[in-house]
Amino acid sequence: MNNKVSMAVIRRLPRYYRYLGELLRNDIQKVSSKDLSEKMGLTASQIRQDFNCFGGFGQQGYGYNVEILYNEIGDILGINTIKTAIMVGAGNLGKALGNHINFEKRGFKLIGIFDVNEGVIGKVIGGITVTHANELSDFLEKNHVDMAILTAPKVETENLVDLLVSLGVKGFWNFSNMDITRQGAVFENVHLGDSLMTLRYAMNKNE
Amino acid sequence: MNNKVSMAVIRRLPRYYRYLGELLRNDIQKVSSKDLSEKMGLTASQIRQDFNCFGGFGQQGYGYNVEILYNEIGDILGINTIKTAIMVGAGNLGKALGNHINFEKRGFKLIGIFDVNEGVIGKVIGGITVTHANELSDFLEKNHVDMAILTAPKVETENLVDLLVSLGVKGFWNFSNMDITRQGAVFENVHLGDSLMTLRYAMNKNE
Repeated sequence: MNNKVSMAVIRRLPRYYRYLGELLRNDIQKVSSKDLSEKMGLTASQIRQDFNCFGGFGQQGYGYNVEILYNEIGDILGINTIKTAIMVGAGNLGKALGNHINFEKRGFKLIGIFDVNEGVIGKVIGGITVTHANELSDFLEKNHVDMAILTAPKVETENLVDLLVSLGVKGFWNFSNMDITRQGAVFENVHLGDSLMTLRYAMNKNE
Repeated sequence: MNNKVSMAVIRRLPRYYRYLGELLRNDIQKVSSKDLSEKMGLTASQIRQDFNCFGGFGQQGYGYNVEILYNEIGDILGINTIKTAIMVGAGNLGKALGNHINFEKRGFKLIGIFDVNEGVIGKVIGGITVTHANELSDFLEKNHVDMAILTAPKVETENLVDLLVSLGVKGFWNFSNMDITRQGAVFENVHLGDSLMTLRYAMNKNE
């Protein structure tokens, strides 16, 4: 595999994966780069270029084998191997993510949810009972935790990240609206406000 | 302004805007492309290239004037002019967005929230009382609505979008996890699952 695959290509992989999953569910076994391109709003040449970053996936004659391509992209994304995750913050956003995201389909298993708010401790979200955040260190000493979802208020985030990194957490799905980085860990910083501004821009251009 | 600005550049504008806003709050009046680049993890040349898409913003000697640059990027994004928005779906995600997103800072004013669930109708989210979704058409005939936030269950989304487009809605912030398009309207399709898969990929690369 090409080690210098650009972030733009990487960010398209989950989309390819979703589309191929749809095709699979509809029992479609072959797909051409032309068909994929029409469905995804990219050019066929862009799609072939993207796939070439990973060796090309051997398109033969009239197209790609959907199931093989689906599994190969899943392997590249790493989601066929499950890592453990906890969530810190069980407010509305935490509830929404815990109840509605299918973590195991994306390579993670949620094994703990924490909050400081007594009103939510003991409640069950996505099958997991919310625990008081003062049990966080204990939990991480007893359980191997790869990733943490940050849905707690912004003020607490920096200290929380330092604690979690020191306890071995290597990945963060960060909804604090701050860009966070730490040596040795990776952060997916989600900025919903940026998404909203991008929409505002697109609406102006569309007028 | 260059009309062929790439989506990659557009998606960086909200980040520039956030960083410049931080500088402003810290009373910093000038910033060089080098300083900006260090803060944002881009090269200085990339930043100058991005800004050149919009005429360059006239960097002079030792840097850009932060307040002018902030306002110009805000104007380009269109967020200095407010458009009206409604939200359809007042579950956990709707509550999270309604309570925590500062819409007016991003060019929108939330003027209505709708749901079909009697348990949530009459509740107040972000200062707005949740109304039954059967009043949606009435509301749109009486109020000019530019944008709709889709946080209702997936099954209802396609029909809902057709209704809203027919009633004049031109933009959609779409959390249904489906890629939706309609002639004459723009969609910002948010896929949190894709973000999670991107994190899973990054964690593998980091091992």
